[in-house]
Amino acid sequence: MKITRPNPPQYHKKSIMDSLERKLILLRNALAENGIDFFIIPSSDPHLGEYIPEHWQIVRWLTGFTGSAATVVVTDSFAGLWTDSRYFLQAEKQLKGTGFEFVKPRAFQRNDYMDFLCENARQGDKISIDGRTFSIAQFRTLERRLKDKEVSIETKCEIVDALWTDRPDLPFSVAFDHPLVFSGKARSVKISEVKEKMKIENAHYHLLTSNDDIMWLLNIRGSDLKYTPVLMSYALIGEEQTLLFINEAKIPPTLASEFDNIGVILLPYEEVIEVIPSVTEGSNVLLNPITTSVSIYNSISKKSKIIEKLSIPASLKAIKNKTEIENICNVMIKDGVALTKFFFWFDCNIGKMPMTEKLLSEKLLELRSLQKDFLGPSFPTIAAFNENSALPHYTTENGSGSTIGERGLLLVDSGGQYMGGTTDITRTIPVGIPGAMQKKDFTLVLKGHINLAMAKFPKETRGYQLDFIARRAMWGSGINYAHGTGHGVGYCLNVHEGPQSISPADNKTVIEAGMLTSNEPAIYRDGEYGIRIENLILCYEDEETEFGQFLKFDTVSLCYIEKSLIDRSLLDQKEVDWLNSYHAEVYDKLSPYLTSEEIIWLKEKTEAL
Amino acid sequence: MKITRPNPPQYHKKSIMDSLERKLILLRNALAENGIDFFIIPSSDPHLGEYIPEHWQIVRWLTGFTGSAATVVVTDSFAGLWTDSRYFLQAEKQLKGTGFEFVKPRAFQRNDYMDFLCENARQGDKISIDGRTFSIAQFRTLERRLKDKEVSIETKCEIVDALWTDRPDLPFSVAFDHPLVFSGKARSVKISEVKEKMKIENAHYHLLTSNDDIMWLLNIRGSDLKYTPVLMSYALIGEEQTLLFINEAKIPPTLASEFDNIGVILLPYEEVIEVIPSVTEGSNVLLNPITTSVSIYNSISKKSKIIEKLSIPASLKAIKNKTEIENICNVMIKDGVALTKFFFWFDCNIGKMPMTEKLLSEKLLELRSLQKDFLGPSFPTIAAFNENSALPHYTTENGSGSTIGERGLLLVDSGGQYMGGTTDITRTIPVGIPGAMQKKDFTLVLKGHINLAMAKFPKETRGYQLDFIARRAMWGSGINYAHGTGHGVGYCLNVHEGPQSISPADNKTVIEAGMLTSNEPAIYRDGEYGIRIENLILCYEDEETEFGQFLKFDTVSLCYIEKSLIDRSLLDQKEVDWLNSYHAEVYDKLSPYLTSEEIIWLKEKTEAL
Repeated sequence: MKITRPNPPQYHKKSIMDSLERKLILLRNALAENGIDFFIIPSSDPHLGEYIPEHWQIVRWLTGFTGSAATVVVTDSFAGLWTDSRYFLQAEKQLKGTGFEFVKPRAFQRNDYMDFLCENARQGDKISIDGRTFSIAQFRTLERRLKDKEVSIETKCEIVDALWTDRPDLPFSVAFDHPLVFSGKARSVKISEVKEKMKIENAHYHLLTSNDDIMWLLNIRGSDLKYTPVLMSYALIGEEQTLLFINEAKIPPTLASEFDNIGVILLPYEEVIEVIPSVTEGSNVLLNPITTSVSIYNSISKKSKIIEKLSIPASLKAIKNKTEIENICNVMIKDGVALTKFFFWFDCNIGKMPMTEKLLSEKLLELRSLQKDFLGPSFPTIAAFNENSALPHYTTENGSGSTIGERGLLLVDSGGQYMGGTTDITRTIPVGIPGAMQKKDFTLVLKGHINLAMAKFPKETRGYQLDFIARRAMWGSGINYAHGTGHGVGYCLNVHEGPQSISPADNKTVIEAGMLTSNEPAIYRDGEYGIRIENLILCYEDEETEFGQFLKFDTVSLCYIEKSLIDRSLLDQKEVDWLNSYHAEVYDKLSPYLTSEEIIWLKEKTEAL
Repeated sequence: MKITRPNPPQYHKKSIMDSLERKLILLRNALAENGIDFFIIPSSDPHLGEYIPEHWQIVRWLTGFTGSAATVVVTDSFAGLWTDSRYFLQAEKQLKGTGFEFVKPRAFQRNDYMDFLCENARQGDKISIDGRTFSIAQFRTLERRLKDKEVSIETKCEIVDALWTDRPDLPFSVAFDHPLVFSGKARSVKISEVKEKMKIENAHYHLLTSNDDIMWLLNIRGSDLKYTPVLMSYALIGEEQTLLFINEAKIPPTLASEFDNIGVILLPYEEVIEVIPSVTEGSNVLLNPITTSVSIYNSISKKSKIIEKLSIPASLKAIKNKTEIENICNVMIKDGVALTKFFFWFDCNIGKMPMTEKLLSEKLLELRSLQKDFLGPSFPTIAAFNENSALPHYTTENGSGSTIGERGLLLVDSGGQYMGGTTDITRTIPVGIPGAMQKKDFTLVLKGHINLAMAKFPKETRGYQLDFIARRAMWGSGINYAHGTGHGVGYCLNVHEGPQSISPADNKTVIEAGMLTSNEPAIYRDGEYGIRIENLILCYEDEETEFGQFLKFDTVSLCYIEKSLIDRSLLDQKEVDWLNSYHAEVYDKLSPYLTSEEIIWLKEKTEAL
């Protein structure tokens, strides 16, 4: 797009707007002082994960936009924000009168703040970023896109540090042990395994920049971030020692001494940028360019050789070990019990008390909190009624949400962090009598869900090969959904945790035994309703034949699927058999933890079709 | 692999072996004279297509190996040949005693002559190739693989030219017009369309190196190659003129004057290497690195900017136009008639006369030749009985093939080049009474075939998303096949012609309306039998809904599918309905061209299940 002049400012909430306008003026002054023509601000922190602490929420501070993913570009006459489709409405609303324009991306283009730069940057322009919050992979894309433009890109623009005077501190939480009974493998063993793999890659050092990789490696957890039980940290694994860069006050003495025993040395978090180059000089350093910031990357000596690939912990932790699998199965019972109690409570109280989407989220969190070893939600709960449920990533985070009316569909997508695993589950239930189209749509989604759950496939199969089976039935009716069918799920870590996925995207990762993935086909009817059925599925080894090893999925999430939304005539016998067997398992595993009233209710919900 | 010493030579057919041994000695002498440590010979010609003329069959001349794809590496103490799985047995047999070793690739590695180089090349070694027969894309892979080795790679090694004294000339055939009634679009219109697309890419010149691109562009055909009706040529499309590099004697005067009228200038084939650099200097040149040789690529001035992507003709011709589609449907009738007559003849004569696989191939070719506008086979016919049919690419090219026995499965995979299209079809039929496992396997293949044929999917779907549906039923029984499900098919051009495919490979090409692709799931039971059912499917636009445009396939190949091999209990009603409707179409469209005896026979073969 071509931008020729800024939008005239509009004023709504006077005080906030004044403050936002002031920030933008100050920022522009700073840009002018530094001769910067374009300043790019992504919504990332130096660890480049999905959730970031307040300290790094620069986009939110500057623009008032509260969505989790956005990029801002500021020039002397333009200030715009790009985000993805889940936040379009929110961005439009929140940016009104801020001086920032919401720039809606064109179809099939995700990065188009880069298009904007390509179209508007002129020879000699200076483009600046804060290299602490840009991955080297993103930066290279930017460089490549601008390579014919004869512009300069500066990567050390930290001007926000001075402007943001009331900036929150970096988060502080104390590490806790993730003991063997949960982790299934001692930290010393994990470190040895990583070192073995490093040898194969001919790497002298392995730099870990993702908090979750480090948590997994050291069998610790923390609460620096809202939805992921991690501590902000870096690690550098060498042939002998492992350097852990972290605010040392976060590590209690017992853990510190255990670390010491196995060669894990604590160093101040901030020192990472000085220590890495001096330690690794002349060595081969393995890192993941997608999670390594420009600052960290550029600090590495030019005399070192950088080996770029997925981190070794990331590929190791994607395959859940036996202890983890046992714990996941236990956690699914806890999570299923909380959900069953929630839906029972809803069923008993709907129509008798006023209910908002927000109230439902709170009730569900309350019920999950009663479960042992529950740490918190794994992402913001989506409790969405009718037209709200048609927005795949709707949340009520900033308000009470809509009231649940007398008739329609309620979609609840939620998950928990437990010591023994991370959950993510979606159910759609009717309020009042569902219509025929709702039942047809629900059944098409269910068919997709069941067919993926039943899939059998040879070793070396990639996720993109399996995606169709979840869409086949609805495609036959001219229906589709615009997101992937399944994302990888961490273990008491990220709810979205690769490298695997089941989606149309060309992800080359093969689905392996031990991988945990979501199975969440959906149908969204704009302005009307959305339907999604999501369980987690665990891949395991099935038979080995003359054609090789075959794999299957075990559905581990446990919660009834609403039968009153099913059009039985659209299911074939194998699909009905799957559902009946799943429902029998749900009843058997959950009923021991329910009240007698709940048991009677669940019995009926799970009766064979 | 590590090679330490050559195999001791073994002598079989004395005279041939002597001659092969002599060539190897002469080649090694030449290598020594030129200080070459490794000489790599691929089985390609300068146009880098699938079929190559005798003049360029250096591998065959040097080693005696007659397979269509191989790479040879010669050093002073080692001479080895790499090929793919379809030629393993043949390579082992044909190389015995030649001084060349057949090097079987390791699992999941295709390029491993490069592994050999990586493991055996030492600092300072000189590796040589003939840059005329290596694509720049292949060369880059080689360079990348060897980048840490400190070796030199020379790309102008043409020593075979001097050694091969009785080398056949380049092929000579005269061009013939592919008139509007077949092409559906005038050559001048095609050139204009290409120029439009060149503008979008900001290309001043578009270099075409694939013979088929040029044939399509200029609406001509020829018979320089055995299975593809093309003329060896290059073309350079400029903003005004199009330069056609070809042996001028191949272009009859009427065509030459038509070319002249639309700005197509004839230049000698050999001059391409001198003309391209001088004409394109300082310009933007669009080319496909996969079909452009190192020699041609390196001839382009360093002052030019090279834009690398699929050629514009390749992407345009993948979408068949209305005239082409009509012709394809007519050609399918002709081809179906020839096949039906063939299977009828087989049915009448099996057991009454001795039959070999070779005889079947000849009979089928004879029947196809009776069809109007038939130009020749589109690839070597595969007529394979029992254990031979378990080899996906078996041919009888060098012998009479096996005798057809009393009981078993016969697989016939064949195709023709017609003025109005290219065909490729496989049927598997029983000889005698089939066994239960054969019927189960056949039915699983058929289920895959039918389900892909019935698939409905949204625009922007890639081939890899559709592949699973053809494998789902057999995967459920622990069975798989090691090749893709579908390849693109040209129009009176290559039988294998991309860019699209339906396969597990991460081909990003989306399947579009107008694309012609094969649908050929299969089961191969080593040493026993192979089953493959192949039709061509044409993509077309189905309904457009609120979720976007949906696409479907129309099965265009016409030949009955053997019902006696079907286990009806494994098919669901939709699958049976598809088969019955397909069979009704086969009968209706073919019977007008059959004898009364053939009609009665086909009636029974196509009766509803």
